[in-house]
Amino acid sequence: MNSIRVPIVEKILSANDQLAAQNRAFLVCKNIFSINIMASPGAGKTSFILETIYGLKDKMKVGVIEGDTAAVTIDADKIIQAGMPAVQINTGGNCHLDAVMVAGGINQLPLDDIQLLIIENVGNLVCPAAFDLGTDINILIASVPEGDDKPYKYPAIYRGIDVLILNKMDLLPYISFRPDYFTQGVQILNPGLTFFPVSCTTGAGIPAWLSWLETKVLNSNK
Amino acid sequence: MNSIRVPIVEKILSANDQLAAQNRAFLVCKNIFSINIMASPGAGKTSFILETIYGLKDKMKVGVIEGDTAAVTIDADKIIQAGMPAVQINTGGNCHLDAVMVAGGINQLPLDDIQLLIIENVGNLVCPAAFDLGTDINILIASVPEGDDKPYKYPAIYRGIDVLILNKMDLLPYISFRPDYFTQGVQILNPGLTFFPVSCTTGAGIPAWLSWLETKVLNSNK
Repeated sequence: MNSIRVPIVEKILSANDQLAAQNRAFLVCKNIFSINIMASPGAGKTSFILETIYGLKDKMKVGVIEGDTAAVTIDADKIIQAGMPAVQINTGGNCHLDAVMVAGGINQLPLDDIQLLIIENVGNLVCPAAFDLGTDINILIASVPEGDDKPYKYPAIYRGIDVLILNKMDLLPYISFRPDYFTQGVQILNPGLTFFPVSCTTGAGIPAWLSWLETKVLNSNK
Repeated sequence: MNSIRVPIVEKILSANDQLAAQNRAFLVCKNIFSINIMASPGAGKTSFILETIYGLKDKMKVGVIEGDTAAVTIDADKIIQAGMPAVQINTGGNCHLDAVMVAGGINQLPLDDIQLLIIENVGNLVCPAAFDLGTDINILIASVPEGDDKPYKYPAIYRGIDVLILNKMDLLPYISFRPDYFTQGVQILNPGLTFFPVSCTTGAGIPAWLSWLETKVLNSNK
């Protein structure tokens, strides 16, 4: 008698993870590199996205999905003024985007014209970390005025990211912020994490980020 | 025949609201004035609480409940170093405190020695707004580096508060922040809201806040 063969039990994905996987497969099929940007309220997500759009505008077209808890279009308007297509998702008070909302947003963008999709999540350091949206990479924007202890206080989001941006470096002279203490906390949670200190006000550090991102997008479109 | 009398249907409180009401009744019974402090990560909640404790230390004893998403005691340690009793609640990754967690925290404090209870909520502008903890007042700490558009983007939390603190006023010269635009957004959502612009770095504005708070605590203990 042959031995009984037990099929490998696949991980049963949650509903969100299943739809995130679909988003991912669809974006890959469309040759679109995608980024989920998370941060505290006011860390500079929209400014950072605008710097990215302006920096890449002669090289690729960028679509943006703006997550907001209310029906304000302040951020989406800025993107459209910068000449790129943007869709606003109003979460209706919800504290994060999920893969369902993103699937709805993707379908409103001119996908055949876009090489890069940037998703601006709701300003929140806790909840967005638990919801995969199906993007290629997850980015956290920290900012100097938030303080150097944030990796220690919000470890979950620092653990799950692929790139860390530290924004508002221009404010370093006016704020008690120990870069070593911050970096040490990050390294404990996410060793070797790709890291760009920047200032969206002065533009410092932005070229290094753009160069890294451009390479990623080009490689993904091969 | 007498007309049928329909009893007034009382609002059925959610489980959280019921326990919040119990917390409130218990704290009133103990003659403790209580504050729920909400803010984005890094707006300066702990610094503001420390300024409040130091400013009132010759006048009353303050107990503090520290809400954190992780098992770090950075904030609670600072309160204890300032000579006041503190309890840390680790939400286990949850994005807000609720009335159940607070009930557990209250019972670990030396209640007979305390005239003021300060609860530091999890750093988050969305979720804490939906959970009454049973405190006398709810405070939001905004901060200048977060930007002047936050009332427009996070209206729910601005609508539900009793006092607004605008912290990090010392950074105003270095940041593009329109006080009029900020204030206008606040007034639309919460007309006549009690408002204190402060800097926990320079101490500016703190005396006005302390004076207001002291009057509130004394009146509640009559």
